[in-house]
Order: sequence, then C-alpha cells, then structure tokens
Amino acid sequence: MITYNFGIVGLGVMGRNLLLNMADNGYAVAGLDLDQEKADSLQTEAQEGHQIYATVKAEDFVKSLEQPRAIMLLVPAGDPVDGAIKTLLPFLDQGDIIIDGGNTYFTDTDRRYKELSSKGIHFFGMGISGGESGARRGPSMMPGGDKIAYERLRPIFEAIAAKVDGEPCVAFLGNGSAGNYVKMVHNGIEYGIMQLIAETYDIMKNVYHLDHETIQQSFEQWNKEELNSFLIEITADILKQKEGDTYLVDLISDWAKSKGTGKWTSQNAMDLQIPIPVIDAAVNMRDMSKYKPERIQASKLLTWNNDQVNTASLEQLKKGLYFAIITTYAQGLAQLKIASETYGYDLHLETVCKIWRGGCIIRATLLEDFRKAFAVQSDLPNVLLDQQIANKLNATQSSIRSVLKEAIQNGTPVSAWMNALSYFDAYRSEKLPTNLIQAQRDFFGAHTYERIDKEGVFHTRWES
Amino acid sequence: MITYNFGIVGLGVMGRNLLLNMADNGYAVAGLDLDQEKADSLQTEAQEGHQIYATVKAEDFVKSLEQPRAIMLLVPAGDPVDGAIKTLLPFLDQGDIIIDGGNTYFTDTDRRYKELSSKGIHFFGMGISGGESGARRGPSMMPGGDKIAYERLRPIFEAIAAKVDGEPCVAFLGNGSAGNYVKMVHNGIEYGIMQLIAETYDIMKNVYHLDHETIQQSFEQWNKEELNSFLIEITADILKQKEGDTYLVDLISDWAKSKGTGKWTSQNAMDLQIPIPVIDAAVNMRDMSKYKPERIQASKLLTWNNDQVNTASLEQLKKGLYFAIITTYAQGLAQLKIASETYGYDLHLETVCKIWRGGCIIRATLLEDFRKAFAVQSDLPNVLLDQQIANKLNATQSSIRSVLKEAIQNGTPVSAWMNALSYFDAYRSEKLPTNLIQAQRDFFGAHTYERIDKEGVFHTRWES
Repeated sequence: MITYNFGIVGLGVMGRNLLLNMADNGYAVAGLDLDQEKADSLQTEAQEGHQIYATVKAEDFVKSLEQPRAIMLLVPAGDPVDGAIKTLLPFLDQGDIIIDGGNTYFTDTDRRYKELSSKGIHFFGMGISGGESGARRGPSMMPGGDKIAYERLRPIFEAIAAKVDGEPCVAFLGNGSAGNYVKMVHNGIEYGIMQLIAETYDIMKNVYHLDHETIQQSFEQWNKEELNSFLIEITADILKQKEGDTYLVDLISDWAKSKGTGKWTSQNAMDLQIPIPVIDAAVNMRDMSKYKPERIQASKLLTWNNDQVNTASLEQLKKGLYFAIITTYAQGLAQLKIASETYGYDLHLETVCKIWRGGCIIRATLLEDFRKAFAVQSDLPNVLLDQQIANKLNATQSSIRSVLKEAIQNGTPVSAWMNALSYFDAYRSEKLPTNLIQAQRDFFGAHTYERIDKEGVFHTRWES
Repeated sequence: MITYNFGIVGLGVMGRNLLLNMADNGYAVAGLDLDQEKADSLQTEAQEGHQIYATVKAEDFVKSLEQPRAIMLLVPAGDPVDGAIKTLLPFLDQGDIIIDGGNTYFTDTDRRYKELSSKGIHFFGMGISGGESGARRGPSMMPGGDKIAYERLRPIFEAIAAKVDGEPCVAFLGNGSAGNYVKMVHNGIEYGIMQLIAETYDIMKNVYHLDHETIQQSFEQWNKEELNSFLIEITADILKQKEGDTYLVDLISDWAKSKGTGKWTSQNAMDLQIPIPVIDAAVNMRDMSKYKPERIQASKLLTWNNDQVNTASLEQLKKGLYFAIITTYAQGLAQLKIASETYGYDLHLETVCKIWRGGCIIRATLLEDFRKAFAVQSDLPNVLLDQQIANKLNATQSSIRSVLKEAIQNGTPVSAWMNALSYFDAYRSEKLPTNLIQAQRDFFGAHTYERIDKEGVFHTRWES
C-alpha cells in the first residue's frame, strides 16, 4: 500500500492547485474535503504519473500519510481552521506537522501554535500568494514560526514555488506568526495597487476621455517598462476581453468585494501607529462601492460643472502611477519593520522582497529595487530613505502633482493617488502642523505637550 | 450624618470638575480617589455652599451615599474601570447604579453590563465631552443602555449639562453601549476637524506665506461666521498666546499624541464597511508625526522645487475648510447610522446632533444644520443627501478644489483636506472604477463577480 508524502485539507481552488503542483513535482499527495464532489473531481484532474488520493474521510486521509505526517490546511480563515484541526487531531501522532496555508489573522496562529504544541503537534502558518494559477504553476510562499518543522518540508515547498533567477520564492521568514503577518501586508499592498490601477483607468476614461483601446494598449505597453508587474499585466489582459461587441469589464458591477485582509492590514497598522494611507484608501473605496443607491442619489444632488479641457499625457500618467505604487510598497514594508520589532518576528526585509519577486500577486520589477535597498541597509526603516528609490520619486513627483490637479479640477475621485502624494509630502516634512493639535489637546483637555526648546512635559493655562 | 446624592470615582481633571459642577447645582457629592493628594485638593477647591466629601477609602465612600446609590466612574478606559468596579462591589447593594463616564471601548460596556446585571447592579456607559472647562461649566453627555437607571438620574445630569436655547445637552441615546459608541465617533470627528484646522494653518503659513497675525485674525473672524465652533475659537485663542516675544505654538513639539478614540473610530468603521477617510487621515497624521528622525532624513532626500507663487484667497480657504468640515461630520454621522442598525442601538440622529450643539468639543453652528436635516428625514443615511447641506457643498466645492491644487503644487501635505474632497467625489459617483477591481479579483483568485445586465454570480476564464 502506497503512503503519501503530503496531505492537503480543503480542495477548493488553492488546495486543489497546490496539490496538483506537488504531484507535478513527483510527490504523492492526499487530499481531504468534506465535499464528495470536490474529492471526486480532483481524481479526474490528475494527469499521468500523478500519485493522488482524495477522500472525504479524515481517518482514511491521515492514515494514508507517511509519518511524521505533513498536512496543510487550505480552508477559509477563522472557525473552519479550528474545525479542520479538531477533525484531524484524534488521528494524529506526536511529531506530525500541520501548516495553515490560508489567510489567517496572525493572532489566531499564535493561539493555535500554543494549543497544538501542548499536544506535541508542530504547527506553523504560511501565507501563500499567486491565486489560482500561482498555486498551480508556482506560488510565492511565506512560512514563519516553527523553523524545525519548516526545514523538514523545505524541499517540497522549494520544488513547487515560483522561481526567479533560479531562486525559489519561499523562505523561512521569522518567528511566531511572521508568515501570516507578511502575507496580510502583502494583501494590503495588493489592495493599494489595485485601487491605484482602478483610479488610473478612471482618470484615462473620465479626465482624459481616452478610448478603450488606447487605455488597454497603455497598460500593455507599461507592463513592458518600469511598471512591469502581474497586476498591470492582468489589467491589460482584462481590458482585451470582449463579450460580443462589448468589453466585459463594462458589464461588471462596481461593487467591489473583499475577504478582509486589506482591512486587517489597515486596522493593525493603526494599532502599531504606522501610517499606510494608500491601503486605507483602497479599503475605503471598496466599502464606498457598496453604497450604490446612495451614490446614485448623490450624483444628482452634488454636481460639478467642470469647465476644463485636459489633454492626456500618458507619460505623466505612467510616472504618476509609478510614484504612487512605490509609496504603497513603502508603506507596507515600513509596517513590516515596525511589526517585526513589536512582535519579535526578526524579519529580514531583503528576504521578504526576494520571495515577492515571483509567484505572488504583487510581484513586480520594482521588488528587485526594494530588495537592493535592503541589501544596502538591512535595517532601513522606509524604502523612501534609500537613495535610488528617492531618485525615482524625485524624478516622477511633478507628474503625480500634475495629474492630481487635473483630476481634482475634473471632479474624478482619486483617493489612493491623493494619499500616495500626501504620504510622500508628509514624510518629507521636517515639521508638521501637528504642534497646533497638541496645543488644542492641552487647551481643552489639559493633555500637556512637549517643547522644542526644552525637555519636559508642559501645561499652559490658555487664555480665551 | 449627611448622606451624599452622588458619588464620583476618579478625581482627575474630569472627575473633579464634574463633581464641583454638581455641587454648584446644589447636590451633595462624594469623591473617591486612591491618591490622597487628589482627595485632599478637592476639599480645598470647594466653595461656600458646596457639600463635598472626598476620601481614599472605598467603603467610607460607598457608605456615605444615599440609597439606591449612584456612582460615576471617571477613570482611564480599560483595566482601571474593571479595577474600580471590583473595589466598589463588596460594598454595593442590589439596585445601586454605576455609570462609566470615561472613553470606554463600547464592547467593554456590553460585557460589564452583563456581569453587573447578574449581580443586580445597574450599569450604563455615558460619554462625556467638553474637556476640563466643559466638565466644570456644562458638558455634553451621551448616556445609553439602562434607560430606567438613567431616568432616575436625569435631573442631576440635566442640571449640570450645557444648555442650548434652554435645552440641556444630554439625552438618552439608545440601547446597550450606544452612549460610548456615540462618544467614540464624536472623538473621531474631533480628530478629523483638528487635523483639518492644522492643515489649514499649514497652508496659510507655507502655501500662502501669511504672517502669524493674519492667520490668528482669520480664525478669530471665521469663528464669527459659518465656521463658528469651539475648535476654531480655541485655535484663535491659542495663536494669540505668547511667551516673551515668541508665539507659544511655535515652541510646541509636533509629535501629536492620542488616547486611542480616533483609532477605534477608524478601526470600527472598517469593520462596519463605512468609509470615514478624513478621520483615518487624522489618525494617520498623528502617527506620522512621531517619526520625526525619519522625516528629518527624508526632508533632505526628497526635495521639491516649487516654482509657483500663490496669492492667498482667505475667502477660498475659509470655504474650503467649511466644505471639508461638513464632510467630516457627514462621515461620522453615517457611521452612527450603520452602527445603530448593526448593534441595535436605535439611535435618533436628530437627538445626537441636538446634544452636540453645546458643551462638547465638536460643538459648532453647523450642528443645528445637521439637526434640521434629520428633523426633515429621520432615517437620512448621509447628510450629504440633504438638500440644504448639498447646497452648501455645491457652493464651496470650487474653493476646496482651488486650494488643493495650490497645496499640491506647493508640496504641502494636506491629507485630511484631500480625503474630504475625494470622499465627496466618490460619494457623488454613480459609477466607480471598482468594476476593474472585481475583474482583477476574478482573474487571479476566481472570486467571481456580479454584472449590471443580469442577475447572478459569474466567473470568467480570462485569457492572458
């Protein structure tokens, strides 16, 4: 009887494709799903030479695996993860390894690690990015936590990972829930870039009145230049897709859904007191998109007669988007720096950038620039402080300013673009006007303030 | 032996001043503080006719109160509240009332309500705003939860509250933790307006190069017009304050501190999927203010040579600020609407606006306009949909657009101003470009999308 090298629980899009990817690489893999149909359909997808087994029975699944067992969960974050662990536990032995490959909130991973350690089970979280096709052909994977357990499985993960210059897009990232945290911020950056691209598309249509073909061709061209990245690439692909005579994108509802990872990134950044305003804007605009009936009413009540005619400069638009995307990565990477210090992850940001260069949704030529910045200075608090990155921003800032002024005059909402620039302008301000806020807080709440000319804590009896 | 009508635990700025306010109104009030010095100093502050007692002993404090007892906690949010309750409990009797008057996170109030109900103790949360002088001379108070207990204490609260047109700025707001929630959002709006004012001050100084006196006089004048409000008023007062030949505000450090209520507002709005981007920007800019060493470094590396000379239009600036402040209230009030539905608070937003007209930090002439909007339509989802408010925004939007364009060209960070406008432009967009985001999500993650031409959920096998 054959024993399988690896087990996957949850045979949805991600689980099924990762399983097939492992099978491609010569591993014998077992799958478990409570849904008989999903288990059956996996068998039909198997190709010649694949050693695959799928079942709906937890006991059969566990018993099919070689010991110590390695089982990866690819089920929705939250209760389903606890449910899957509970289902497996009675059949597991000490030394077995469970990996959570989902978008789990990082504190849940810390909790589960403790619970499972006490039972002698290894457990670690590993963020996986790349979507459907990444999982099938090579994702980027972000493991953290139990290093010994990870090392035991390293060969299989390196085999299935995306490769950049021959190097696999997977590496042990750090302690505790580091893997889930890095994946969460990856997704936050993804939200930010997607919103920036959507706004760019809106500017092209509504500020510059470009035709659909010009817009499509611009993204296609940009993907061959500095902006080269997965999200620009698929935007060009999406804009080509037709249904009859109509471009499919025009038939899609503008209510943008989400699964919460962008929101978590923003909420946790606020806990860590690290500003990531482009990501916040992206979360907000997805939320705004759901208030369609209100927006229809508002569109009739709040009107703006723009008298300005704009001539598109695609060069400026491209540079503005490039500028905005750089600031978005900068925000997410700065958040990782602070999170690493706060939670003791011991992250190496060069490694993070390295494994993000391929396989994942935010892969982009720019990642190599960021990797280099951290190679030069491993404790760089913000990539905006790297001379090479600063040069890129200094060279493109006039473009984002010009485009924003036109969008503002036009009345087109460009929230993420705006937040990219105001982040930049605030970050490069030696002095912010927040001294006035401190004065106000002291005025009404006796909250005290600090001074620039002497040490200490001060309170003024302000006169009114 | 005298029995006291009311007890206050925590004799810091707020507790001491509320206690004296009650004493002014003829109530006999007892105070408890673990700090002997604070207890003693209260006695010295007492004026003729005041019936005041202060102690460091919980048992003496509780026994001094008439039954059923009414005790208000004014201690820092979090563990100190639980600590104070634990200290009092052994001496309390069934039917006694505890009121939490602090900035407690609303879910803590729900938890404590359950715990204390089971012991026969009434408990409710009541947000209090007005700072030091409001507490002393008349705050705005936001009670919610146990209506029977509140009704018993209504006379005392109405006596000490601020009055507008003879009406007290206190009213029962709704179920459960409604009082704390409304106060939280009040503070979020406060953060937003304070940041808008700080940016306005920055624009005056750094975009228009106005001298300090002109800036001070502008705020003073504006406070006499539509912008009339507590925060504009104290800004004018603050800018007058000198230390020797130097304006005090120029000596204050720009690291803006916070106690977390703005952050809670933003984080919870994200949970409720309600965009409040001006408040988010305010939270972000306080956080940004702490990264001083990085900002100094960035100021040298990221430079912008602005070649534009701007001539200030104070009229435009005033109108732009007015526009931005309206959108900030709109965001907070929209959040209250959704929160009320989500948590079952049954809030009446007209009442909320009514009690915010006086006593609290965000009191402003505008509150009466918002009150009227809800009087016309009690279930208004957003004040931007009120015709009178819409008229104000339509009349001032060209001003905010002009000022923003100049600030952008100048390189001055105006994050809250920007988010005010992009919120407005997004809200009045019948169609947002988020359809592209849905297409991207379906492309890489098979997340499906909805269509505008037919019902259902769709997935496309996108071609690349």
